[in-house]
Amino acid sequence: MVDTVGVVGLGLIGGSLARRLAAGGTRVVAWNHRPHPYAQAEADGIVCARDLRELMDAAPDVVVLCNPLKAMPSVLAALAPLLAQNPRVTLTDVGSVKGVVREQVREAGLEACYVGAHPMAGNELSGWSAADAHLFDDALWAVTVEEDTEYRRFFDVASMITQHVGNRLIVLDDETHDKAAAMISHMPHVVSTALINELTANPDRNIAAALSAGCWRDMTRVALTDPDRTRAMVEEDAVNVEVLLRRMAARLTDMADWLHDADASQVRGFFAEGDPFRRYKSAIAHSDSFANRELEIPESGWQQALLFSARRGEAIIGFVHLRQAIIQVRPSV
Amino acid sequence: MVDTVGVVGLGLIGGSLARRLAAGGTRVVAWNHRPHPYAQAEADGIVCARDLRELMDAAPDVVVLCNPLKAMPSVLAALAPLLAQNPRVTLTDVGSVKGVVREQVREAGLEACYVGAHPMAGNELSGWSAADAHLFDDALWAVTVEEDTEYRRFFDVASMITQHVGNRLIVLDDETHDKAAAMISHMPHVVSTALINELTANPDRNIAAALSAGCWRDMTRVALTDPDRTRAMVEEDAVNVEVLLRRMAARLTDMADWLHDADASQVRGFFAEGDPFRRYKSAIAHSDSFANRELEIPESGWQQALLFSARRGEAIIGFVHLRQAIIQVRPSV
Repeated sequence: MVDTVGVVGLGLIGGSLARRLAAGGTRVVAWNHRPHPYAQAEADGIVCARDLRELMDAAPDVVVLCNPLKAMPSVLAALAPLLAQNPRVTLTDVGSVKGVVREQVREAGLEACYVGAHPMAGNELSGWSAADAHLFDDALWAVTVEEDTEYRRFFDVASMITQHVGNRLIVLDDETHDKAAAMISHMPHVVSTALINELTANPDRNIAAALSAGCWRDMTRVALTDPDRTRAMVEEDAVNVEVLLRRMAARLTDMADWLHDADASQVRGFFAEGDPFRRYKSAIAHSDSFANRELEIPESGWQQALLFSARRGEAIIGFVHLRQAIIQVRPSV
Repeated sequence: MVDTVGVVGLGLIGGSLARRLAAGGTRVVAWNHRPHPYAQAEADGIVCARDLRELMDAAPDVVVLCNPLKAMPSVLAALAPLLAQNPRVTLTDVGSVKGVVREQVREAGLEACYVGAHPMAGNELSGWSAADAHLFDDALWAVTVEEDTEYRRFFDVASMITQHVGNRLIVLDDETHDKAAAMISHMPHVVSTALINELTANPDRNIAAALSAGCWRDMTRVALTDPDRTRAMVEEDAVNVEVLLRRMAARLTDMADWLHDADASQVRGFFAEGDPFRRYKSAIAHSDSFANRELEIPESGWQQALLFSARRGEAIIGFVHLRQAIIQVRPSV
């Protein structure tokens, strides 16, 4: 049961989450390393704490770490003695790379109360001033668990997401998450940056920039976001990004060779290879709604059962009871 | 002086152009290889011709070829005898690769009346049903000329663009255009396609697709457009695309190496390299308006003078008289 959510850090994500929870009637207690947004936050119905002790004194059921990764060691160190006194509290976060967060949580001796989380929400802005409850509209969260994660803690985080935030979730292990995030975000951020680097190096860059239209604008939008934030994200997931960058380089080199050789059949094959993804996008776009069904969650091996569900393209949208989830079934790629 | 514009092909671009010209009060005569959009086109004030002879009989000052490139040989063959009888008529087109079009125009013996053009407008749709006068809102055209292009013919096309369509233009040679278009469109289309190919090949593609958000959506939008149209565009500009794909592959491989070696300084450098483009985008975004000034166009070497103007980040927005252009000065990259 989740009544009160603690939010650590009122930046873009933490601020948006706190606003959305408060707007939906959930009790939210927040702490920010600089108290500057407190007047506005309190006007939005968010209880603001002077320090993490005051946040924990408000008896949150779940504490969501929305601080930057570089602040994680100091935040975790401050939370460790407080969580030792409140062992029922579940700790989660919103970081875009899950392996590194769990490592830091483990180093702080807090792994027993931790469940990882990553809401797929964000934009090119940052800070409280950009925080918006609608940032989470229709968002999907990845919730990451391990073999020894306590089911009850997963359930608290999952309830917060489905019932209080009104979002969907899939359950993954850290590695599967970090590989998938590298695929659809971290590696593409590098590719986008490489595109603007290439234009910057082009002797006719003013002409190219003048000619640029929708394709260029869309493909370079993320390269215009704070490059330090992107760099941090890429470095945290370096192992997975590296592999995908090499695969992309090989794909681009192959295509260069095929164009050089005017190999029409290979070029045609290259453009056809992504057809399953095109069909998937078309199926999603043409679905007015998705089928829901119930999924019994086994007591043993629940992590694997939920990972397989995610692999089938399913997402949890709620719970009938502790061991019975409502899942939404979407088309597969 | 342009009074009447002929439009060959009422697809997305031709249809949008014809609608915009007609809506602005310019007399438009159009021909389409299948007459199906004629009832709607006529309702929009577009005069529809049964064949190219009837189109030429309507005495257009400029004829804009908006047909697919593969139809170019047959369209040019049909136009050749008609243009021989109407030598004042200037021929132009809207193709996204200029070198190949000029070659076909030359093969049809029509180079003397031809000026290349490429409006930077489009979307992922196609066909008359998607045609929209607003597609050309604030569009920039590249107009391509050669050493022996008659100034009067350039002026007719430029007048149509600035005065009748209400757009801006820059003047390039075919090669500069095709290289720049490869940079900001053709090569990025291949990169976008490589991204969806990579996801399709990923064993956890359903999880990756579920996690995908704004970054992935924007970077793969153009990969979802008609892959045959993209393939044709890339093959037409193969030489320039090949070079850029190899450069991009080298950039991605370098970054993979730096991530592998945890070379923080190189990684930092990679993310800083595009700062001039970030500053340019910021300067554009923060400009309420751009300065205009007049540019005298010399009788001899006007092609080079206008190319240099484009390299400085300037665009023609109108004419005071035949040899005096009004140019808009934008920030440089």
